[in-house]
Amino acid sequence: MMKISSEGVLEQISPSCSPLFDDEFCARFEKLLVWRRDVRGFKPHPVPADLLEHLLDLVQLAPSVGNSQPWRFVQVESAEARASIRASFERCNREALAGFTGERARTYAGLKLAGLDRAPVQLAAFCDGSTLQGHGLGRLTMPEALTWSVVGAINILWLAARSRGLGLGWVSILDPSEVTQALNVPSSWRLIAYLCLGWPEEVHDTPELERLGWQDRTVQSRAILRR
Amino acid sequence: MMKISSEGVLEQISPSCSPLFDDEFCARFEKLLVWRRDVRGFKPHPVPADLLEHLLDLVQLAPSVGNSQPWRFVQVESAEARASIRASFERCNREALAGFTGERARTYAGLKLAGLDRAPVQLAAFCDGSTLQGHGLGRLTMPEALTWSVVGAINILWLAARSRGLGLGWVSILDPSEVTQALNVPSSWRLIAYLCLGWPEEVHDTPELERLGWQDRTVQSRAILRR
Repeated sequence: MMKISSEGVLEQISPSCSPLFDDEFCARFEKLLVWRRDVRGFKPHPVPADLLEHLLDLVQLAPSVGNSQPWRFVQVESAEARASIRASFERCNREALAGFTGERARTYAGLKLAGLDRAPVQLAAFCDGSTLQGHGLGRLTMPEALTWSVVGAINILWLAARSRGLGLGWVSILDPSEVTQALNVPSSWRLIAYLCLGWPEEVHDTPELERLGWQDRTVQSRAILRR
Repeated sequence: MMKISSEGVLEQISPSCSPLFDDEFCARFEKLLVWRRDVRGFKPHPVPADLLEHLLDLVQLAPSVGNSQPWRFVQVESAEARASIRASFERCNREALAGFTGERARTYAGLKLAGLDRAPVQLAAFCDGSTLQGHGLGRLTMPEALTWSVVGAINILWLAARSRGLGLGWVSILDPSEVTQALNVPSSWRLIAYLCLGWPEEVHDTPELERLGWQDRTVQSRAILRR
């Protein structure tokens, strides 16, 4: 345990638990945020099994409502399961394309929206809605907090993977019921994300959707209301 | 732009964009994950305005579906607004307590579940469901991906705050409609979280819910299914 001095500066009590985060670390951490990307292009080289295990250990450190840890992962490896996922993506992507016209449709058709073809590691992330862990704390008024805990865990995985040079892509252009059925998971599990993980073909400090003219980042989200 | 060598090792192309994350950084980043906490006890010392602004700049680097950046923040400062939030928490917390009996109820009553009394900075995080940014990409099949983008942004804020020695607490024991009304935000905004931010009274490497006997972390969430 450490205590905070009255100036708000970390004051070391025990050397065994002194995670001081200095300016250099903070600057590098910010670079990690800058260089984290949704990756859709992967090299075929495998991800070492012990590295993947380590990343999944780190995921357990994510915050969760009531300490419920509701995330459940399925590693999708078989050709059959991968083909089902890919078929769902292709159908959903065609439907999405049909919703756009003109220049927007042409831009959409040119986007690469999933790395399903080459990502060596593919993980389906679910939320176990039946878990009793956490005893319901914090979920009475905002029950979605349980699924949101899984989203937080995925964001931890995203950053941890990037810190090791791995790219992660979140595929949401899928029919959750098709994915759930293809993967034969407990009925209480709800699909949150289908994740592609591997060595990226390229790394960038700007989102691919920005580079390809789909959507720039804007300042609207930066405005703060005061009440 | 950087390219990845065939061994999966980062290969520097341009010195101006070479955020190599070495083993030392990765080890420290993992410490950041270990020491991030949901904080409910704060010192009263203010958070420098430029530090808060900087953290909110970093939040803009969070991933979002279609690059939609749907997060909207309200900084809650007035005594009137804070009193409304506190009243909502107290009512909801009483209702939650009433749902437990015996030892579990006693433990619940002993938990400190919000830092609303002293946190110098209080932010309500909303999702703007009406945003056109992102042109709906990725939201046709999984519309919740928009709110999940806000959750990701909050997790970035959580880590960035902790790297600077600040603690963040996520309060979900609130009535979203009461909070939305008290803060007078656009009707398309949906409450995702009420966040308390400030200098923590203590820092720990284990969750308070674990220390106080509510819920330990378990290994159930670590099991990986293979398909």
